[in-house]
Parts: sequence; C-alpha cells; structure tokens
Amino acid sequence: MAPIRRLVLDVLKPHDPGVVTFATQVNEVERVDAVTSTVVEVDENVKTIRVTIEGTDLDFEAIRTEIEDLSASIHSIDQVATGDRIAEDPLVGS
Amino acid sequence: MAPIRRLVLDVLKPHDPGVVTFATQVNEVERVDAVTSTVVEVDENVKTIRVTIEGTDLDFEAIRTEIEDLSASIHSIDQVATGDRIAEDPLVGS
Amino acid sequence: MAPIRRLVLDVLKPHDPGVVTFATQVNEVERVDAVTSTVVEVDENVKTIRVTIEGTDLDFEAIRTEIEDLSASIHSIDQVATGDRIAEDPLVGS
Amino acid sequence: MAPIRRLVLDVLKPHDPGVVTFATQVNEVERVDAVTSTVVEVDENVKTIRVTIEGTDLDFEAIRTEIEDLSASIHSIDQVATGDRIAEDPLVGS
Amino acid sequence: MAPIRRLVLDVLKPHDPGVVTFATQVNEVERVDAVTSTVVEVDENVKTIRVTIEGTDLDFEAIRTEIEDLSASIHSIDQVATGDRIAEDPLVGS
Amino acid sequence: MAPIRRLVLDVLKPHDPGVVTFATQVNEVERVDAVTSTVVEVDENVKTIRVTIEGTDLDFEAIRTEIEDLSASIHSIDQVATGDRIAEDPLVGS
Amino acid sequence: MAPIRRLVLDVLKPHDPGVVTFATQVNEVERVDAVTSTVVEVDENVKTIRVTIEGTDLDFEAIRTEIEDLSASIHSIDQVATGDRIAEDPLVGS
Repeated sequence: MAPIRRLVLDVLKPHDPGVVTFATQVNEVERVDAVTSTVVEVDENVKTIRVTIEGTDLDFEAIRTEIEDLSASIHSIDQVATGDRIAEDPLVGS
Repeated sequence: MAPIRRLVLDVLKPHDPGVVTFATQVNEVERVDAVTSTVVEVDENVKTIRVTIEGTDLDFEAIRTEIEDLSASIHSIDQVATGDRIAEDPLVGS
Repeated sequence: MAPIRRLVLDVLKPHDPGVVTFATQVNEVERVDAVTSTVVEVDENVKTIRVTIEGTDLDFEAIRTEIEDLSASIHSIDQVATGDRIAEDPLVGS
Repeated sequence: MAPIRRLVLDVLKPHDPGVVTFATQVNEVERVDAVTSTVVEVDENVKTIRVTIEGTDLDFEAIRTEIEDLSASIHSIDQVATGDRIAEDPLVGS
Repeated sequence: MAPIRRLVLDVLKPHDPGVVTFATQVNEVERVDAVTSTVVEVDENVKTIRVTIEGTDLDFEAIRTEIEDLSASIHSIDQVATGDRIAEDPLVGS
Repeated sequence: MAPIRRLVLDVLKPHDPGVVTFATQVNEVERVDAVTSTVVEVDENVKTIRVTIEGTDLDFEAIRTEIEDLSASIHSIDQVATGDRIAEDPLVGS
Repeated sequence: MAPIRRLVLDVLKPHDPGVVTFATQVNEVERVDAVTSTVVEVDENVKTIRVTIEGTDLDFEAIRTEIEDLSASIHSIDQVATGDRIAEDPLVGS
C-alpha cells in the first residue's frame, strides 16, 4: 500500500486535555514525525483544530484511535498526501 | 506519446470508502508516485475532492478505472501537465 | 529569429478529444518540452483552457496547426516569452 | 514524549513590563531558542501579543509560568508544532 | 551611461502582426536577451500588451523604433531598471 | 539575557531631521547592523514610520534614547524578535 | 555614518526628460549600483514614479541634486534601508 505522507485533519477537541498535550500525544503514535495543530475556532465546550501530521508511512487508524482516546474526534479530513513524496496541490488558494 | 507528469482532477466521491483509503488506492495505480487529495466540499452523500496526482508517466485510463472502482467519478479535469517536466502556469491566481 | 520559450494560450476546445489527449498531442509537436493545460471554464459544448507550453525553440504555427487538428482553436494568446531565457513579468498580479 | 518545536500563543500582557522585557524574559526559559512577539492589539490596560516561540524541546509549563510571572496570561494557543521538525500547515491562509 | 537591464512597456499593437511575431521581432533588437509579452486587454482594433524586456545593456531607442516598425506604439513605460543588477521594488503590490 | 535580534517600531517623527538622517543616526547605535524605515503615514507635522532594526544583540534603551534625541518618539512596538535566530511568525497576514 | 543601502523615493517628474533618461542619469550618481523606476501615476503634466535605488553607500544629497537637475522633485521618501545589509520589513503588506 502507498504510504501516507501527510494528513490534514479537522478535529473537534474538548478543552481538556489542552492542545499541547493533545499534539504531543498524537506525535507519539508510531511513524508520526511531526504534528502541527492550528487552532481554527474556539467555542464554549470545544476547539476546532486543523492538525497537520507528517511521516514517512502514517497509520491513519492508529492516529484516529489516539485522537479518540484523547476524547477528541475527527470532524473531517481536509487533505491526504500519499506516495514517494508530497505532491503539492498547485491550485490551493487560487 | 508525451508522458503525463501531473493530473489535477475534480472527483465526486461517496462517503465510502473514506478519503484515506481512496488516496492510497489511487496511489497503487502503476507509475503513480504521489497523490494529494484536498477535500473541497462535503455534501450529504458525496465529497468533492481535488486530487493532485504526480508521476513520471501517468496512465490516465488506469487512474480513471481505479477511481470508478472506488465508486467515485471524475467530475472534471482541472489541470494536466505533460512532457519532460512540469511547466508551471505563470498566470494561475492572477 | 529569437526562440520562443513559453506560450500561454487561451484555447477553446470541444469536449472531444478530452483534455488529456489534447495535452499529450500538443506535447508531441516538435521542440515542445512541456505542456500544462488548466481548465478555466466549462460550457455546454466547449471548454476554455489556458495552455502553458514551454520549450527551447517553440514553433507557433506547428502548435496552432496541431491544436486545430484537434478541433480546438486558439481564442487568444495570453503571453509569449522569447529569447535566451524566460523574463518573468514583474508586474503580473500587481 | 515528542518534543515541542514551536508554540504560537495569544498572550494578554499589561503595559508593564514592556514587550521587550517580556520577550527577552520568555527567551530565558530553558530550551527556548527564539521568541518573536508581534503586537496584535493595544487596549487601554492591556496588549494582545502573538508570541511565536521556537526551540528543540520546549517546556510549555515553564513557559506558562514565566509568562504569568510577568503578570501576563496565555489567552489561547494558536498553534503547536511537535516532532522531529516543524510540519508547515499547507492550508494556512487558504 | 548606466546600462538598462529591464524595461516594462505598455504597448498598443494592432492585431497585425500577431503577438508572437511581435515578440520575436522585438527580441531581434541588439542586446535584447529576453522578451515576455503579456496580453492585458483586447479591443476591436488593438491589443494592449505589457512587454517585459531584459538584457545587459538595452538600447531603448532601437527598441522603440522596432516596435514602431511593427506598427505598434509605446503607450507608456511602466518600469525601467538600470545598473549593475535589477533592484526589485520592495513595495510593488503593497 | 537573550539577545534582541529584531525590533519593529512604530515611530512618530517630526519632519526634521529627515528620514534619511534619522535612519543613518539610529544605525549608529552600538550593535545595530541594519535599519529599514518605511514611511507609513505623513501628516502635517509628523511622519509615522515603521522602523525595522536588526542586529545580533540590540540595546533597546540606547535605541530609544537615540530616537528621542532625534526629536522622535516610539509610538508603539510592533514586533520584537529575540534569541539565537529570528523565529518568523507563521500566522502574520493569515 | 551607517551607509545607505536602499532608497525608495516617490518622485514627481515632468514628462521631459523621459523616464528612461531619468533612470540612467540617476544611476550615474556615484555609488549608485542599480535604479528601478516604477511608474505609479500619469497626470497631464507630471508622472509619479516610485524609484528604488540600491548601492553599498548611497549619497542621498547627490541623488536629490541629480533628480532636481532633471527638473523632477522628491515628493516623499517611502523607505530608507541602512547598515551592513538590507533588513526586510517583515510587516510590509500585512
């Protein structure tokens, strides 16, 4: 199977645990090299975070499980990049 | 025939299979190096995804067949890049 | 004569042949190194495509002939770059 | 635990101490390599600053404590980047 | 005299000769290295083209004469860059 | 103390001395490597200038004193960058 | 005195001499390496040009004199960069 290189997830996260703990925990999942969580929206009970995860061969189910273990949920998948490298989308933002 | 270097496709995909499975499957098609799927729109039954596919000599029909095997369909082709390299469009976004 | 390095053409193309066949065919013209076709507009019978063609010494008439052989037509020329290299237009988009 | 590489914090800071003292002090926290404070808003009693902190293995709690010692408070966390490197968010600004 | 490195001209060109012939002819002028013609506007009888010309020591009068020989005219000069190198305008577009 | 690498100051400057004298004088302050003054607004008696100052270990008080000696005043501090290098703010402009 | 590296001037220039002559003449001033004149506005009698001048140690008064000798005038100074290098303003355009 082609390896997953990058996942950009739209995640709904309760205020606890905090986004720092959340990010470092997700980064603990096997084969995750780097995780960048950008807070997009803050509501009364929940934060919407766009989580960019990079690695050489990401395990989506393991990541999903970890996110759910942290009482958060994947609201939607914004982008998935697979293969030998990351092919940048030439029309993003146009 | 001049090799296809990059395809940017507008794909309509039912919610099943998920976009991760979809991306990794398309990446399994011969001579596909990398696939980036950006979710553009989510409707009740279908997602619109912009799929950027790169390779040294892509086989469009094989890619189309794989997409249709995954119960999705190519709604339109946004961009095709062929030849020795990818010539970037200097007027994108202007 | 100064060689043509890049042509950006606004092309009206009937739905048949498809844009993939169209791009690979145009790329077959002598001295064409790379062709990127960005679909700009889709009407009932015709697609408007912005075709970026690069090479070290492009033959415009041969390209026009090939385009017309593919039942398409050059609606207008958006940009022509000639000479030793491609001089980027510093005021594009400003 | 995956190291924290970058923190982008939304900080509310009283006018005293000044933003220069604030920035240099936060930079004194262990394992902080660089701190960039961009003043986003100035109100009568308080400044809103976006503080970008980079290091190889940042200690969030030590940073929070230092910020609070400087009579400021973390209003929200805008972004957290963890792991081997900083994965840039491909959809920022799109 | 300081050499002219780049000229960006606003040119009014009748439909004949075509923009490809026009560009290659202007490129034939001595010491012109590269010419990029971007079509900005198309009216009934005339095209407005922004012509970016680069060289190590451009001869403006020779270029003007060539343009006029091609029945076109310089409507205005948008930018002139002279000297040892091209100093990019840091405030273009801001 | 962590060195200050970059200061971006919003300065109110009377028309005298001129902005050139002002910039060169501020650059004379010890450990200032480079100063870029961008005029943001011009009123009857005063100019608002955004002054970007870079160095390996800037002395803010010495800079403030020099600015005040030139009859100008720091209206506000827009950005302060400290540490081993300048950490660019990833969310500027987003 | 700290050397001036870059000047960005807002210049009002009568139609004569032309902008090409103007630019090459300003470039003749001692220690001017490169001059880029971008025409910003054209009125009946006068052109507004943004003139970017770069050098290792520019002489502002000599430049002003040359500009006035060419019957033009410095309407305002948009930016001055001094020191060992040019510090780019990180907030231009934000």
